[in-house]
Amino acid sequence: MLRLNRSAALKQVRIEDDFWTPFKNLVREVVIPYQWDALNDRIPDAEPSHAIRNFRIAAGKETGEFGGFVFQDTDVAKWLEAVAHSLQEHPDPELEKLADETIDLIAEAQHEDGYLNTYYTIKEPGKQWTNLTDCHELYTAGHMMEAAVAYYEATGKRKLLDVMCKFADLIGQVFGREEGQIRGYDGHQEIELALVKMYEATGNDAYLKLSQYFIDERGQEPSFFIKEWEQRGMTRHWGDAKGPHTKPDPSYHQSHLPVREQKEAVGHAVRAVYMYTAMADLAARTSDASLLEACRTLWRNIVQKQMYITGGIGSTAHGEAFTFDYDLPNDTIYAETCASIGLIFFAQRMLQIEPKGEYGDVMERALYNNVIGSMSQDGKQYFYVNPLEVWPEASEKNPARRHVKAVRQKWFGCSCCPPNVARLLASLGAYVYSSNEDTIYTHLFIGSKSSFQLGDKRVELNQETHYPNEGHVRITVNPEQALEFTVAIRIPGWSRSNKLTVNGESVDIGAIRRDGYAYVTRTWKAGDKLELELSMDIHLLHAHPQLRANAGMAAIQRGPLVYCLEEADNGSNLSAITIDARGEWTFRYDADLLGGAVRIEGSGYREDESSWNEELYRPVQFAPSPIRVHAIPYYLWGNRKQGEMRVWIRVHQTGI
Amino acid sequence: MLRLNRSAALKQVRIEDDFWTPFKNLVREVVIPYQWDALNDRIPDAEPSHAIRNFRIAAGKETGEFGGFVFQDTDVAKWLEAVAHSLQEHPDPELEKLADETIDLIAEAQHEDGYLNTYYTIKEPGKQWTNLTDCHELYTAGHMMEAAVAYYEATGKRKLLDVMCKFADLIGQVFGREEGQIRGYDGHQEIELALVKMYEATGNDAYLKLSQYFIDERGQEPSFFIKEWEQRGMTRHWGDAKGPHTKPDPSYHQSHLPVREQKEAVGHAVRAVYMYTAMADLAARTSDASLLEACRTLWRNIVQKQMYITGGIGSTAHGEAFTFDYDLPNDTIYAETCASIGLIFFAQRMLQIEPKGEYGDVMERALYNNVIGSMSQDGKQYFYVNPLEVWPEASEKNPARRHVKAVRQKWFGCSCCPPNVARLLASLGAYVYSSNEDTIYTHLFIGSKSSFQLGDKRVELNQETHYPNEGHVRITVNPEQALEFTVAIRIPGWSRSNKLTVNGESVDIGAIRRDGYAYVTRTWKAGDKLELELSMDIHLLHAHPQLRANAGMAAIQRGPLVYCLEEADNGSNLSAITIDARGEWTFRYDADLLGGAVRIEGSGYREDESSWNEELYRPVQFAPSPIRVHAIPYYLWGNRKQGEMRVWIRVHQTGI
Repeated sequence: MLRLNRSAALKQVRIEDDFWTPFKNLVREVVIPYQWDALNDRIPDAEPSHAIRNFRIAAGKETGEFGGFVFQDTDVAKWLEAVAHSLQEHPDPELEKLADETIDLIAEAQHEDGYLNTYYTIKEPGKQWTNLTDCHELYTAGHMMEAAVAYYEATGKRKLLDVMCKFADLIGQVFGREEGQIRGYDGHQEIELALVKMYEATGNDAYLKLSQYFIDERGQEPSFFIKEWEQRGMTRHWGDAKGPHTKPDPSYHQSHLPVREQKEAVGHAVRAVYMYTAMADLAARTSDASLLEACRTLWRNIVQKQMYITGGIGSTAHGEAFTFDYDLPNDTIYAETCASIGLIFFAQRMLQIEPKGEYGDVMERALYNNVIGSMSQDGKQYFYVNPLEVWPEASEKNPARRHVKAVRQKWFGCSCCPPNVARLLASLGAYVYSSNEDTIYTHLFIGSKSSFQLGDKRVELNQETHYPNEGHVRITVNPEQALEFTVAIRIPGWSRSNKLTVNGESVDIGAIRRDGYAYVTRTWKAGDKLELELSMDIHLLHAHPQLRANAGMAAIQRGPLVYCLEEADNGSNLSAITIDARGEWTFRYDADLLGGAVRIEGSGYREDESSWNEELYRPVQFAPSPIRVHAIPYYLWGNRKQGEMRVWIRVHQTGI
Repeated sequence: MLRLNRSAALKQVRIEDDFWTPFKNLVREVVIPYQWDALNDRIPDAEPSHAIRNFRIAAGKETGEFGGFVFQDTDVAKWLEAVAHSLQEHPDPELEKLADETIDLIAEAQHEDGYLNTYYTIKEPGKQWTNLTDCHELYTAGHMMEAAVAYYEATGKRKLLDVMCKFADLIGQVFGREEGQIRGYDGHQEIELALVKMYEATGNDAYLKLSQYFIDERGQEPSFFIKEWEQRGMTRHWGDAKGPHTKPDPSYHQSHLPVREQKEAVGHAVRAVYMYTAMADLAARTSDASLLEACRTLWRNIVQKQMYITGGIGSTAHGEAFTFDYDLPNDTIYAETCASIGLIFFAQRMLQIEPKGEYGDVMERALYNNVIGSMSQDGKQYFYVNPLEVWPEASEKNPARRHVKAVRQKWFGCSCCPPNVARLLASLGAYVYSSNEDTIYTHLFIGSKSSFQLGDKRVELNQETHYPNEGHVRITVNPEQALEFTVAIRIPGWSRSNKLTVNGESVDIGAIRRDGYAYVTRTWKAGDKLELELSMDIHLLHAHPQLRANAGMAAIQRGPLVYCLEEADNGSNLSAITIDARGEWTFRYDADLLGGAVRIEGSGYREDESSWNEELYRPVQFAPSPIRVHAIPYYLWGNRKQGEMRVWIRVHQTGI
């Protein structure tokens, strides 16, 4: 059996952090109430959600038509999950009451046999389980299960968990390889990882086996989706009355091959990473070596060939999908927020199996850049697509870039991203640490007070830091009594020179570093201090030469934060700017920059337009003028006036 | 009245040229017969055209369903026009017989009242003139008119001309501002320029006035297309039974404003340039100053802000359209062949009004690059989209680039481009010269024997050149008797130093150069020789800093030919290559290169991949290795093995 380094449960970790506490407060004070209003169709000028109303109709408390997408229920589920996480750290009786009432409503919408889905209840009764390919029936169930587990863990209340156990039991009867069962799986993976959570919460082995069945069955021939489509008379849900009813493309759903034979991340990016997360969950719990190897292969393919420097994934809007190795255009990008969240899930699960810095590094990259960059400073507007290059006029006038918005939008019609951000931030504590019987791993540098059980001993950790603005991290270790164990701390891949001390005495990192973690094993006594000083240099990075879109360009990074240039600081036409990679680059904390952040400044050049007359092309005659180049953290872009933004900047001297 | 410099008629010019005769032979010997087979559905593996069959069905000689697009008749029209042009230089009784029979068939398909259109005859009888927005009814008529005029000019046979006069007369009754007439115009401009040709061929002033009506009416409020759409019950042709029936977008059809108020080229690029061509035609014939000014404004907008260096126009596949100023992406480009042909028409018409080098330069640029590059060396395969950057794997796997083909295709389902190339090349003589009573203009450097009537005197010109491979042009001037007149010769904008001699004696170009033409006025005697020696240096060009897609890059040009790098000569991953703009660049004629062409070679660097391990991003550390860079003329790309291609190459030293 694999030894699992379990992520700390939320109740073990209390975040108190310069950088993150404001985000978490925003989620609690603004996002959750705002989303509640959205679910109840109370946001002016935003498309109505219909989500709560659908449950009221399904429960027989109201009459009307179903509204929203076929998976609209999941918005309620993600909200409930965020609420549950939030209640762990911040009890709030009023909010809990709202959640309890919502759960009562959900329970009333459940069918006698356990079935629960407002779309099929209201709009297509009797058509359950006829279009797994398109209609997210099990995906929706999966999100409800995640909410149920989270709410149970937060409050101890079983009502929603019981509802979802009943539904999971029904699903276990409907799906499988026995006579009379549907030998299929969902078009959008999600229930696979949710069932593992159900198994962990209830101890019911049937849920683990059901998850395993969905994963093992996927991609077997003949294709379930194509068979289902033929049985349905070759119709598709999304084609609906008018559109084309094309044959399903199994690779879009990662069902083109059995999962163990998949070598490259393909198709819809969110579906993909949700599936890989479940695969890792199952590999960890069943010691399935071939499944684990598939996880490693797919992980490497993503992070070595298909991931933006911001931790974004998905190179095309068409199918919100991966394309192929090294195809990472900055302007026609997709990089959906939910996909990076899924990548964080996948990284967290891989860390539980094998604590390697590459997982922690990518988790951090996606979190500090793509994910938090998707949300506006006020928590009310979101990017679905997270570009690395924005030219607002092109977003408006060039259809190939129309999906790339230059300003964040209010709650979306298809509102998967905002509640996904909320539930991730509300549960951030679960990504900071993991542990087994003798080792506590620190994956993220986030001020927090946490407690662990090592064997029969209790150990508390108090992490203090001003990261990512500064590189100093102090962990005070407090075992209930002197105890030998290991505190392993991630040494980020981007950090070139670091200092580690225990109680002020220097420790040779090289001697205790393995796969990106420094392992400090000793008999810890209460009050012992482990201190890490990360070098927070500015790095100019460039991309693998096969990544054609970034040829000749560099990105700026400091600590985990990727930087960008904005028109607000650098004027328009950022393409005309080159940076001097050999020049001196400096940083300074600016308390006035969007709540406080570290700015970066360096020298560069701007191609002069004044010598151009009316010609569009002329003989080469560069006349760049020296300028100062100003960069801000990527996650803060788009919070001032609308304008251009670029992450990858041309390098002035390519011959260095 | 404006003094019109009439383009030479085809019968005046006989092309005998190293470079162009093979193209013209290809059109005559391969393309016209191949297209005839295509029109008759005899090309294996290609989508059937149905075009001739539609006429047979409409003529009652066969039963069956209409096939192809609503404008399928135009393929027959363009073929007939190409045949007509070809017959002018190369009488071919067998081909003429085929054309006569086709014309007989067309005549039989004409309705009693003059109406002619196989789609409405077969598929939607009674629905004529109900969907001008989408259904190309007048566009199709326009192409038939162009064919009719060309065939009449070539053979003196009036049959098709009479057919089209009858149809034009009907159109004149149906459309107009009187009670009972449709106050509208076509969704796809074309008839406007065709009616001017009808006017020129017949002298019937009504055709000029009808053209004028269509141009003047366009863009008036309320929008005809939107009114028509409302009257039709808000349906669209292309939405058909299943798709969306969206409201027409007047700017797609250049009807968002009265034409005289339009300042920027917008919408579908072919529609746009066909309209501008007609506007110039009308301005020339009616001395309409505001119309001429609109032509100049739109011309400048295109060539100064919306034209690729290859003479391609149209920055997006979505609507095959212009986007906005300086938005010229190389990879998601459209640059349809037909649009460049239309730009050549527009340039030719502007040259007739005001002979300025900028028109001749752009005409040449589009012709020698975008247009001839669209055709394969064997004349059987075509590009519809003419990219400046091709990565074959991206064309296959990234949907945003799927319209960009890495290899030319056989005759298309929508086959506008191949027959458009054929008719242009077959009528190339008409673009070389224009003249008025006392001046003969040479716009293009193409070996040719031509004759002109200056007043009551006949003048023959014999142009000899190996252009564009070499820069020497000799024009032997043969007036029937000594005569004072002017020979004006274009001095291309790209040519920095040139020599002009008359009978070996040097002429000071500076003193006689005006707006891009050198005007040599003298008493010409038979045998006088005007010789121009153009400097054929290699130019590295760069683009206006606002053209963000080309920042830091250069294109290679020699004479009128834009060059490109191909994988066949430079290996894969052309993005990893930088060129040394300060290095020495050389050219040499290579008789073995695709029938003979001039290669260009220079020094550059290639970013080394060998130092990269598994990381996708790493600190900047460029390690380029010196390489030789090999370029070939753009028009020859894609004729060897499939591979990458790039026109814009990164420049190694940006600080020169």
